[in-house]
Amino acid sequence: VVVVSDTDMWAPDVPSVCVGMRGLIAYGVSLRTAPVDLHSGLFGGAVPNPAHLIARMVAALHDAEGRVAVPGFYDDVRPLTEAEEASLREIPVDEAAWMAMAGVRRLDGEAGRSLLERIWTRPTCDVVGISVGYAGAGVKTIVPAHGRFTATFRLVPDQSPDVVGAAFEAWVREQVPGGVEVEVTRMGGVAPALTPVDHPAMTALCRAVERVWGKAPLFTRIGGSGPEEALGRILAAPVLYLGVALPDDRFHAPNERMVMDQFWKGLLAAGELFGELGRRG
Amino acid sequence: VVVVSDTDMWAPDVPSVCVGMRGLIAYGVSLRTAPVDLHSGLFGGAVPNPAHLIARMVAALHDAEGRVAVPGFYDDVRPLTEAEEASLREIPVDEAAWMAMAGVRRLDGEAGRSLLERIWTRPTCDVVGISVGYAGAGVKTIVPAHGRFTATFRLVPDQSPDVVGAAFEAWVREQVPGGVEVEVTRMGGVAPALTPVDHPAMTALCRAVERVWGKAPLFTRIGGSGPEEALGRILAAPVLYLGVALPDDRFHAPNERMVMDQFWKGLLAAGELFGELGRRG
Repeated sequence: VVVVSDTDMWAPDVPSVCVGMRGLIAYGVSLRTAPVDLHSGLFGGAVPNPAHLIARMVAALHDAEGRVAVPGFYDDVRPLTEAEEASLREIPVDEAAWMAMAGVRRLDGEAGRSLLERIWTRPTCDVVGISVGYAGAGVKTIVPAHGRFTATFRLVPDQSPDVVGAAFEAWVREQVPGGVEVEVTRMGGVAPALTPVDHPAMTALCRAVERVWGKAPLFTRIGGSGPEEALGRILAAPVLYLGVALPDDRFHAPNERMVMDQFWKGLLAAGELFGELGRRG
Repeated sequence: VVVVSDTDMWAPDVPSVCVGMRGLIAYGVSLRTAPVDLHSGLFGGAVPNPAHLIARMVAALHDAEGRVAVPGFYDDVRPLTEAEEASLREIPVDEAAWMAMAGVRRLDGEAGRSLLERIWTRPTCDVVGISVGYAGAGVKTIVPAHGRFTATFRLVPDQSPDVVGAAFEAWVREQVPGGVEVEVTRMGGVAPALTPVDHPAMTALCRAVERVWGKAPLFTRIGGSGPEEALGRILAAPVLYLGVALPDDRFHAPNERMVMDQFWKGLLAAGELFGELGRRG
């Protein structure tokens, strides 16, 4: 088995075990309409503007229901099993507390899907940056000649980075009008990972967590991406996630923290897990 | 009269006299959805993304016909007189040459309007910059918390910078969903300028140009904006544009040039103009 500790638990009093992570692909898309920026008084109104073209493309990435509009995007999404759905329903979600943790004052996303589905079990598209012309202080009266954006997709089983990536690339090229140069650059790809909840090693992990926290863990997922899928695939071994971080630990952000009680319990649980796995041998 | 030389002629062998300039307003629009950027794996799919919101707003600025979609935008646009339309039709336009000068491989703009209408006599909207998140080399897997864009509008008689600006501000605020902070900043405003072609001072200008170039000038406009409107309004005097630049002089750009034959002819025409105006006294 592969044991990874890069995940979190739902809450200190709601122990949980992550069973999967989303995959990730990222693309840079650049458009060029002219060799240099043009004077917006002399040319504006008659020449293509990459700010408008990019805005239309990014706006078209989602439909009015918040679904990703790239054709075929959802084709390979494996529906949740009844056990997975039941486990999701058991998790005590406080939307107001989650919004406060994120610092947002509204929720967004795919219509008809719960908060946990949106962040864990459904694929998403987020444009992480757009840069066209000049948008700093003051104003440059130009029609910009060039612009770019970076789109990321979080993937779930059984979506393939290559298949979704090819669909996105084809979609982008269809959106760009003739006479405009487009360049699409793929930046990395990670497949989604999912460990079957009925695997015997998973049973061992759940026992270890229950022994330390005093409660059977719920099954969760994590919406982020990592190399775990490749580890499990290359080693042909189930991946166990014994992570003890908490959702409000501010991963990779200023003021990241670690709750020490979770840390010590995690050490104990690791010992229990290796004992469990040894006994099974 | 006010005499200004900040304009151009259609071609060395097609002398022309500019009769008006477009006005200009510019607005910075910033959106904030959260205090800091969020991890796109942990939050992506459930929180608002300013890249998507700004893209939708910029995409919605124009309709499918290339018309500006801000309600009331065209209400105060004064139709061209028959004389103005006839003068526009006389100008020998070579679209391929114009595209080559601009360096573009397609034209864009308001459906059903000619190239000259689009750049001279019709109002336009160009977003001159968008900046959201990170779109440089590589990828940051964030849901950005903040983004901004700068929108400019070129105005024609009788559009008022204040009226159009207020309509744009109201429109922006309607586009932004609840729970998202928006800030709209106006950056300057210039009203459109138009000198009546039948004003006696304009007749003097046309005679001066005809005497030097050997042909009666056509009437043109310039799509850019300047302080001429305020000069004419405050001094209550007609503005005469005796400009001799050429459209491919690359105004305000690298490799700007001046064709010396036009320059010397311009000096002679200025002398003729003052003579004409003096004789009228």
